[in-house]
Amino acid sequence: MAQRHRKTPRLGIVLDAAQPSSLQAQIVGQLRRAVLEQRLGAGTRLPSSRLLAEELDCARGTVLTALDHLIAEGYLVSRPGSGVFVAPDLPDALLRAPGMIRERRQATLVTTPLLPPRTQAVLSDHAPEPGPDDAGSIAFPLGQPDRRAFPFALWARLLEREWRNPSWRDAGAPPPFGHGGLRQAIAAYLGAARGFVCDPETVVITAGVRESVSLFARIVLADGEPAWVEEPGYAGIDQALTDAGVRAVPIAIDESGFSMETALAMAPDARLAIVTPSHQFPLGTVLSLPRRLALLDWAERTGGWIIEDDFDGEYRYSGRPLAPLRALDRSGRVGYLGNFSKLLFPSLRLSFLVLPASLVDAAHAMRARSPAGASLLGQGALARFIADGHLTAHLRRTRLLYAGRQQALVAAAARHLHGLLDIAPDPGGMHLIARPSPDFEPAFDDVVVAAAAARAGLRTAPLSRCYRGPDGAQGLILGYAGTPEAEIEAAITTLKQILEALRPPGQS
Amino acid sequence: MAQRHRKTPRLGIVLDAAQPSSLQAQIVGQLRRAVLEQRLGAGTRLPSSRLLAEELDCARGTVLTALDHLIAEGYLVSRPGSGVFVAPDLPDALLRAPGMIRERRQATLVTTPLLPPRTQAVLSDHAPEPGPDDAGSIAFPLGQPDRRAFPFALWARLLEREWRNPSWRDAGAPPPFGHGGLRQAIAAYLGAARGFVCDPETVVITAGVRESVSLFARIVLADGEPAWVEEPGYAGIDQALTDAGVRAVPIAIDESGFSMETALAMAPDARLAIVTPSHQFPLGTVLSLPRRLALLDWAERTGGWIIEDDFDGEYRYSGRPLAPLRALDRSGRVGYLGNFSKLLFPSLRLSFLVLPASLVDAAHAMRARSPAGASLLGQGALARFIADGHLTAHLRRTRLLYAGRQQALVAAAARHLHGLLDIAPDPGGMHLIARPSPDFEPAFDDVVVAAAAARAGLRTAPLSRCYRGPDGAQGLILGYAGTPEAEIEAAITTLKQILEALRPPGQS
Repeated sequence: MAQRHRKTPRLGIVLDAAQPSSLQAQIVGQLRRAVLEQRLGAGTRLPSSRLLAEELDCARGTVLTALDHLIAEGYLVSRPGSGVFVAPDLPDALLRAPGMIRERRQATLVTTPLLPPRTQAVLSDHAPEPGPDDAGSIAFPLGQPDRRAFPFALWARLLEREWRNPSWRDAGAPPPFGHGGLRQAIAAYLGAARGFVCDPETVVITAGVRESVSLFARIVLADGEPAWVEEPGYAGIDQALTDAGVRAVPIAIDESGFSMETALAMAPDARLAIVTPSHQFPLGTVLSLPRRLALLDWAERTGGWIIEDDFDGEYRYSGRPLAPLRALDRSGRVGYLGNFSKLLFPSLRLSFLVLPASLVDAAHAMRARSPAGASLLGQGALARFIADGHLTAHLRRTRLLYAGRQQALVAAAARHLHGLLDIAPDPGGMHLIARPSPDFEPAFDDVVVAAAAARAGLRTAPLSRCYRGPDGAQGLILGYAGTPEAEIEAAITTLKQILEALRPPGQS
Repeated sequence: MAQRHRKTPRLGIVLDAAQPSSLQAQIVGQLRRAVLEQRLGAGTRLPSSRLLAEELDCARGTVLTALDHLIAEGYLVSRPGSGVFVAPDLPDALLRAPGMIRERRQATLVTTPLLPPRTQAVLSDHAPEPGPDDAGSIAFPLGQPDRRAFPFALWARLLEREWRNPSWRDAGAPPPFGHGGLRQAIAAYLGAARGFVCDPETVVITAGVRESVSLFARIVLADGEPAWVEEPGYAGIDQALTDAGVRAVPIAIDESGFSMETALAMAPDARLAIVTPSHQFPLGTVLSLPRRLALLDWAERTGGWIIEDDFDGEYRYSGRPLAPLRALDRSGRVGYLGNFSKLLFPSLRLSFLVLPASLVDAAHAMRARSPAGASLLGQGALARFIADGHLTAHLRRTRLLYAGRQQALVAAAARHLHGLLDIAPDPGGMHLIARPSPDFEPAFDDVVVAAAAARAGLRTAPLSRCYRGPDGAQGLILGYAGTPEAEIEAAITTLKQILEALRPPGQS
């Protein structure tokens, strides 16, 4: 007993094998918090990895990988021969994030209360966003349009006009499905731009993709039923399904996209498929036409449902896009999602879901119980924006802009990242995937690289985090839509330096 | 067997004793839908109540009460000696509600798909709002401020100024807790108006009370844990708790408000109390000071948590208000809720939650998983509105306005509703409770009265619906804040005619 407590700082790490996150991720998360909240003071020596592994009752390799991760992030430093220590000076970038300042102040004011295990799990999993979102020049945020390209002066005038003298109805409680004018404008836009006719009564305005997915899943699935999601994919979808009380079953996609055979082999009883046919997130695959027809056929034959998330289908730079599933759907099984926050500016927070007509009543009943998250405030202005042709004009402008940025990114990578990262062009979308070059690959850890990039002011997303399993492909997701061409070259040069510093000595 | 199917229209009613709604409510809901969707055509004769009871395997009294309810609502008619029929002409008011038009059209277009039981339960429970919200003259909607009193021209200018040239940050993804300036403005306002100091870092902007309650409950309670709610109370709170995966335990309030003894007797293991101390919803009781201290003492001693919903605390017309719980809270156990949609205009959909400082980190982690519902769009404008003193001025104006309306309502009721309804004044709030006069009480059914009033264009809420149990007090909740004095007299006269028509013959 005495043996077990010798001078070990009380790290307060509690591992829980039942949690969805791995033991390693739990150690990383909890140690990081302990450092940030200064429960582990600067310069404190950590117990040896052997002792830690013994205390936490896990493999020593798990502890070592977790410590390496935190060393790479700059929270810990290793002094060969004497052990691992809390960094004497935490990197400024970490402390400058707003969350961190607050956390430090709080730690001195209040004691951490006893919170239930599910909250502790969320807390220990939570890593604040790496960089602040203040500076206008940050490359390569994911899923962000160019805010500078949006005509805010026009937008402000439309808002002013919308609210100067609102109708009785517009000032009242928001209708369950949102602003009638906006729903009409969306239906008309989809007919012209995406090639399918829908009744405005089937359009629901939501605050985001998660709300759309959660609403749809609540309607069509019973508690605990499985839904197919793409692997790799967007983690927000899984969380929306969890919120709806149903279960995400990841289905590995292949070069033609989502495969019915794989899906039926993994979970034959699933009754909902959530897919990104136009441009798979994150890999960019376009779902082949035979696969589209197989999916629709499955839904029609079995009474299954499909959510088609067309999150960046508007951005297509070459080739002819395939028709959306919704346009091919003869039996009313497809819900279609679009997202204006990705097309206009992120704080807009207006998305929509086009329901199959047969689900409209059920959606009304659901909304009466849990009212909409979407504010009515900008909906009238957005309706005008679309109806007056500003959306189409904005998309035309930004399509040219983003196509140029993608070319600039591919060209800069070819110039500077040879032997480090390979970036292939993509006929559509707002991001590219950078994969480690073959001889760099064994040493490449995308989480470590992304953390190092964040410290240098570059926002990148680790591709492996889009996989639920531990064996995800390695890579960086680079959102280029929000990064002006002039800044791409400099950002890639910075990325090169980061990668070279992380490359094991001897390679070049 | 043949016996059982003789000429019974296939009503398609499926009762489920496991559902939260009563068998009677299920029959009402499903029959109403069958009529509205014209699965039961106009003039169709229903099977006898005895046969229905036999088929549905429930008491005949249950069927009879359900049929009476639908007769009172106008969906069915009774022809003495020949039976009960679907009304030959549905009342226009029912069909004019937008939901209904849609439903009718759809019924001819698509067949109802097979939906899981939980969705069917929600559907059969769902009764669309009785009256449209278009006309400006409707009395007495609940929880609605006077939209005409709000300075929309000023608001439109503030919106225009906010969005003309937004900062990089304001155009970006909304910060997890909302607009920094708004959080500061709220903290300053609470210090001046509600008498407690709070750090802006503890203020979270939400889309409504449900989002606030759900967030708080997710943080402090484990899955399935109980939380005390007031009986009677606001059903939206229960739904928010269900969304958070926890359990609402109704605690009957008495003349001093929420009682710790009752609560501890009902669910001694609860760790969260959700209360409306300033002005109980719906009864208007002010929680006494000893009860406030008992609640705080419980939280401090046991590590319990309190949500103080101060939904209309700003409207106090006479007497000194008691300090909010939050102002008395020395140990950081109280979350405080406020709601601008109730103070300014309903479609604003901006509320806030002031967290205990010790829960800020956990709330950040939760928000990272399920982002805010509140749009950033009006938050900057609202910050200016508050900081420039417009909120205080607006509250001062509307306080006078609403006080006058309450007096007008009490006076009109005294003139016209003698022997029918008794309405006592209230030193605060935005609604009054009208209770049946003693000799009318045995025949009074607030759900039937509210349905009849809705057909005459009057919105009233049945008090009994605020009780989870079947033995709730009878009464009508009349929101007067949105009803101009000039219209109150006419509305009360209409209400008188409705009540007299419903009074059993012989009484007067």
